Parts: sequence; structure tokens; C-alpha cells
Amino acid sequence: MIAEIITIGDELLIGQTVDTNSAFIGHELSLRGIRIGKINSIQDDENAILEQLDASIQAADLVIVTGGLGPTKDDITKQTLTNYFGGKLIMDQAVLSNLENYFAERNRPMLEVNRNQALVPDCCEVLFNHKGTAPGMWFEKNNTIIVSLPGVPYEMKGLMLESVLPRLIERKQLKGIYHRSIQTTGIGESFLAEIIADWENRVREDKLGLAYLPSPGLVKLRLTSYVGIEDKELIDNYFEELISLIPTYYFGGEDDTVSSIVGELLLAKKATVGTVESCTAGGIATEIVKTSGASAYFEGSVLTYSYRLKEELVGVDPNIIKTLGAVSKECVEQMALGGRKMLGVDYCLAASGIAGPEGGTEDKPVGTVWIALAFEGGVYSKRFQFGKLREINTLLSSVAAVNMLRMKLLGMLD
Amino acid sequence: MIAEIITIGDELLIGQTVDTNSAFIGHELSLRGIRIGKINSIQDDENAILEQLDASIQAADLVIVTGGLGPTKDDITKQTLTNYFGGKLIMDQAVLSNLENYFAERNRPMLEVNRNQALVPDCCEVLFNHKGTAPGMWFEKNNTIIVSLPGVPYEMKGLMLESVLPRLIERKQLKGIYHRSIQTTGIGESFLAEIIADWENRVREDKLGLAYLPSPGLVKLRLTSYVGIEDKELIDNYFEELISLIPTYYFGGEDDTVSSIVGELLLAKKATVGTVESCTAGGIATEIVKTSGASAYFEGSVLTYSYRLKEELVGVDPNIIKTLGAVSKECVEQMALGGRKMLGVDYCLAASGIAGPEGGTEDKPVGTVWIALAFEGGVYSKRFQFGKLREINTLLSSVAAVNMLRMKLLGMLD
Repeated sequence: MIAEIITIGDELLIGQTVDTNSAFIGHELSLRGIRIGKINSIQDDENAILEQLDASIQAADLVIVTGGLGPTKDDITKQTLTNYFGGKLIMDQAVLSNLENYFAERNRPMLEVNRNQALVPDCCEVLFNHKGTAPGMWFEKNNTIIVSLPGVPYEMKGLMLESVLPRLIERKQLKGIYHRSIQTTGIGESFLAEIIADWENRVREDKLGLAYLPSPGLVKLRLTSYVGIEDKELIDNYFEELISLIPTYYFGGEDDTVSSIVGELLLAKKATVGTVESCTAGGIATEIVKTSGASAYFEGSVLTYSYRLKEELVGVDPNIIKTLGAVSKECVEQMALGGRKMLGVDYCLAASGIAGPEGGTEDKPVGTVWIALAFEGGVYSKRFQFGKLREINTLLSSVAAVNMLRMKLLGMLD
Repeated sequence: MIAEIITIGDELLIGQTVDTNSAFIGHELSLRGIRIGKINSIQDDENAILEQLDASIQAADLVIVTGGLGPTKDDITKQTLTNYFGGKLIMDQAVLSNLENYFAERNRPMLEVNRNQALVPDCCEVLFNHKGTAPGMWFEKNNTIIVSLPGVPYEMKGLMLESVLPRLIERKQLKGIYHRSIQTTGIGESFLAEIIADWENRVREDKLGLAYLPSPGLVKLRLTSYVGIEDKELIDNYFEELISLIPTYYFGGEDDTVSSIVGELLLAKKATVGTVESCTAGGIATEIVKTSGASAYFEGSVLTYSYRLKEELVGVDPNIIKTLGAVSKECVEQMALGGRKMLGVDYCLAASGIAGPEGGTEDKPVGTVWIALAFEGGVYSKRFQFGKLREINTLLSSVAAVNMLRMKLLGMLD
């Protein structure tokens, strides 16, 4: 079963609004085995809508249209759909009472333009909108299902989950596309591809889809079966083998983050963590507290941005800064060790680097970052070389630091 | 001039990635008077790409394609484009040296798959990518311009701003839109609109475009003339009047940030700043150091995430936390005062709040944030009520804190 998505609205085309509806719909449909052929964002214009309906109905078994159902004048989708399917608009009493309640609850008068929202085509099944005023509409033509939903994201989501998906599952006995992802960190896309080249070839011979999905510091690997859940075991086996190929880079599944994994490990050990940061200015702390419940193990940080505070607060030897610089193995190790004591934590991460855009030298170009981890009985440190962009460097340093703690907690640094 | 956008990638169709590239491109093109006819998100598949190219080239004068240019095997856009335009792939020496530098700087070996990124079609103009490894490509066919850009947002943005838009402006003599923006903080869009309603009416009577461009904590106001630079004086006069209507909310022009303005003011006073943070976990520090050269006035921070560190490091009275809670005027004022001493700075900002998603109570719902500023001779504090989303609350708190310092430095808090 192939679907197309049509999102209607000039605000999408001029970039005033990012189209998040398509991502939601695409995700929900593909989870249920419906393949998304194309997403089309078009103007709020009768001809554009008619042309796109023709094209999408020809190409797909299911067309989901969002947007263009509001009460204001620039929304013409409902009338266009009614004409397209050869019907006429009639007043729907259930929708009308919903509207009347909506305005009564808010102590606001109901205007004529609002009343018009209760007009629905007589050639569709009306999908009741529990979260707003514009109903959804379900049409069928030449074996293709066309569903029109409001563009307000939470109204669209409510209708998708409560009305559209249950009807699709019931009426279409869906075959399932099945996919699963794992995540890696500490290795770039192309190095990863080189290590797993043989594995990848076999995956492709078995007609599974493989996608590399990189984001700063991470590469997600997704395997997709177009047969369905029947391939679950095949995919699980491939992932088991993959993990054995990259045991230290692999860190978790689709919904994990490096910091959520570290959080679980710290909780299990009843251990605490803190950070001492310079160039990252709290980026490592931010990465750690992104995980809900981090207050159980994250105590706090010192951001020693100036040389003075590096010396005064965490006790970095001024001679080290003078001779080796603040971006050095020795400095960052003293930051981690001093911070561990000052913050009273079991593990202390420290980072000092040149985030850019200025401040690079020949032997320490922009993107040079030293990261250290102090623990009971010692300290570990490593030099990283990132790129030229400040914000990305902060992100990459933060993920690398949290990953250093992950590897320590898993015994991979010993 | 009509443009279409094609974004390529299965991850867009299955909703793993939200297509933010189209919004950026749509915004930049429409600012320059190019109308966006349609946005098409399609599969990473040769036939899908070919079909879409045919359709878009027929419908538009300009086609911007993003995505599908990475080094791994699932990216086939470059080969497909080369075939489509009847060329062949050749090694580009400039791109190759860029690649070699990129890997040398990072001390990483360059692999064969990376080398392939320097292969470019011999039937296009190569657009050099300063932020990454995959170059952009500029093709022309039947009077239509087709540009292919990498899908990584910051690489795509760099190429759009540095290469694509300047070429379009030069070659297509685009209509001379002139615009200027000012920025406000500390006031929401609708309140702002209410204050400046009369001004706005006159602006519109003068056929100028007015846009409210909100981002977390800020509202940018843009005036656009569709006549061109001839309207510069008219727009300047309108802005002068606008600033007198909202003297405390206005903080600067298009390229300013609240923290760059604060940086200038601190430099002028030769004063220093530090922060004591809890829920924001370094967000205020991050906001301050976003400004290049911040090390001249930013000393550092303490992130007292736990109660223990609030008491031990900056000397918050444990009784205050016990009786009034860590999210209270008294606690945040003690954080600011204690931090000012501990960090040895002239100004110390402190924030303590409930960032969410959990932890709210009836009198302190999620989004409650207390912010304080300690200075020579005193402390100022204020309670803010933000929304339900953690990340946005951190951003809003950080901007509000830096803005509190801006107002203090400008004598607006007295």
C-alpha cells in the first residue's frame, strides 16, 4: 500500500512554518506498513489542489491531505474537495453542537465564519475532531482513500490516532513494513561504512534497506524490511552481528541517547557525576540533564571560562597554563581532578578546547578539544580534533565527553 | 520567477527527519521575490528523482534539490543528476584538496568513499562547500536552473547564502526588495502588536510589508519595501518612531543579539559577569559566550543542580530551601549574591526554576523560573512564567536573564 501526503498552505512554501505534520503522518503510516511515496507541499489555491489530487490519487492508494480547513477566507480546501468529489456542502448537526460547546466553554460569541465549519460535504464520512473545530473528512474514489485533516498539529494528530489509523487497520488488513534502528557514537559515517562493508553487502543481498542517519556526534543505522514483521528475526540477527563488529561504537537503540544510557549506568552504580567546563560553557551538563530524572545522579558543574577561575576554583597549576596552555592534557586532567573534589562527585568530566571561530594556533587549530574524566583512583584524557564551527564543536565535545563516561562505566577504557 | 524545491531522502518520508531545509530555502527565495510553487519530498531512488526532475523542470524556472549527496551507498543523487544532464563524473581538484585538508586537519585518513565526493559532473558549475565535503552543483537546462545541495542543514545554508543567492541576484536581476529589521525582547508578539497598532496601520498604508518574526524570547520586526532601496529613509524614519514607542523592549538591529549588546556594554564599563544556574544547566553561560570575544568579560559559572551544591558552593541557607523551596525569590537571590562573591565578578546572574516536563506544583507550575542579578550594592530578582517545554524554557530563561543584565547596564531597572 502506497500513500502520498499533501500539505496545503502558503506559510509552508514561504518558510514561515516548518512542515512537521508530514513527518508525523509518515512515521505513523510507515510503522503500520504503508509506504510513503511522496510528500507534496502546495499552495492554498484551487487549481494547485485539484492538480495535486489528480496526481496523488493516480500514484497512491491512500492520500492524506492536511491544512486549509480553518475558518478564514484563505482556506478553500473543503469547497475544492467537495467539488472534486461531486458533492455539496450540508450542515452537520454533531459538528455544529461541538462548535457551539467550544465557543460557550470559552465565553466567546460564535461568528458566521465559525458556523461554516460545520458544513461538510455530503459525499464523505465525517471524522469527528475532539480537539478543535474543523472536522476531518474521509473520501473514497477509484479504490483510493483520500483523507482531509486540519493543519493544526495536535488536531491532526488526534484525528490520525483516533480515527484514521484504526479505520485503515480495520479496512485494509495492512502488511507491515518493519524497521529497527541502532545508534553509534565516536565514529564517522564513512569509517563505519568501511568497517561494516561486508555485512552491508549481505544485508542488501537479503533485500533489506539500510540507512545511515548521521547527526552531530552520532550515526543511527536503520534496517528496513519491506516484507514486514516476518523479517524481525532476520533483522535482529543482523543487528546482533553488527553490534559484535562495532562493540565500542554501538551504544543503544532508537530511543536511547548517550546520556540516557549513562544515566542508567550511574543509577545502577548509585554514582554521581559533575563537570568542569571551559569552551563548552555548560554543554556537557546540558547533555546530561536532557535525560529525565538526571537530578538523581547529576550534582552540578563549574564553568571555569577564565584562567583565573581555573586556578582559583579547581586548582589548576598556573605554571601549566603558562607553559602548556589551558588546552592541554595536563590542564584538563587537573580540571577533572580538582572538580571531582570540589563538587564531591564520583565521576567528573572536564573539557578545554578551542571552539572557534578564532583562537587557533598551528599545533592547536580551531576544533582542538581535550576531554578528561576523573574517577576514584585516577584520571583518563584524550585529545579530539573537531571542525571549525563553534556550535557544532560544543555539541560534538559534549557528546564525546558523555561517551567517555559511558565507556568508563562499561569497562571499555581500561 | 517560480521555484520548486525537491528534498530527497527516505528519512523524510518515514518521518525520521523533519524537513527544515525547505522552510529555509522557501524563506530566502521568497524574500527575494521568487515564488515557491511546490515542495516535493521524494525517495532516495533513481526513478523517483528522474520523474520529479522532469515535473519540476517543466513547472518552474528554478529547482533547488537538497539531500542525497553523502559518501555512503544509499546516496545516488549525484550519479542520477549526471546521467540526467548527459554528462560524466570527473575528479575536481579544488574539491579534492578541500577534502584532503578536511581529513588532514582532523588527523583522519581519507577513504575511497570520501575521495568519491570530489567526483563532479562535467556538465555543471561546481559550488564550493566551505562547511563540509559534498560540493553543490549548478545545472541549466531549457532556461531552467537546477541546483543540487547537500542535505546537512548548515552546509546547505552556507551554500545557499554564499553561492546560490548571489548568483541568482546577479544573473536574474531579481526585483530589488529592500528590508531592515529591529529586534525586541521581553514582550510577546500579540502584546507588541497591540502597543504599535496605530504605527502598523500607517506602515501598511504606505505599502510597506511588516513581518513579526518570533523566536524563543525574541520578536524581530521586519519592514520590507517592494520598491527597493529608494524607500530606505521612509523605513528608517518608521523604525526611529517605533523604537520610541517600545524603548525598553527594543534592543538592537538585525545582527545583534541580547548577549552581543550586553557584551558591548560590559566592555565599555570594563565589568565582568558570571552565572549561578540550576534548571538552565549552563544555558545562560552559553547565551553569553555565543558572542565572539566574550572571554574579555565572562569569567565563569557554577551550576548548582543539587540542593547540596546550592548550599555548599554558593551558601544558600538550607532553611530557605526547606521552607520556601529552591525555586523562590530568597533562594535565587542568595545564589546570585553568593556566586558574585565566589566567582569574583561585578555582575552575577542566577536562575532557579521548574523546567519540566515534571516537578510542577499548584503554586509553582512547570515553567516557573526565578531570575536574580547581583551587583555592587544590591540584588534584583523577578519571577517568570514560561510554558511546558523544557528546552524552550531553558532558552527563554537564558534570554530573560541576559536581558535583565542589559536593562541594569542601561539604567532601566532603577
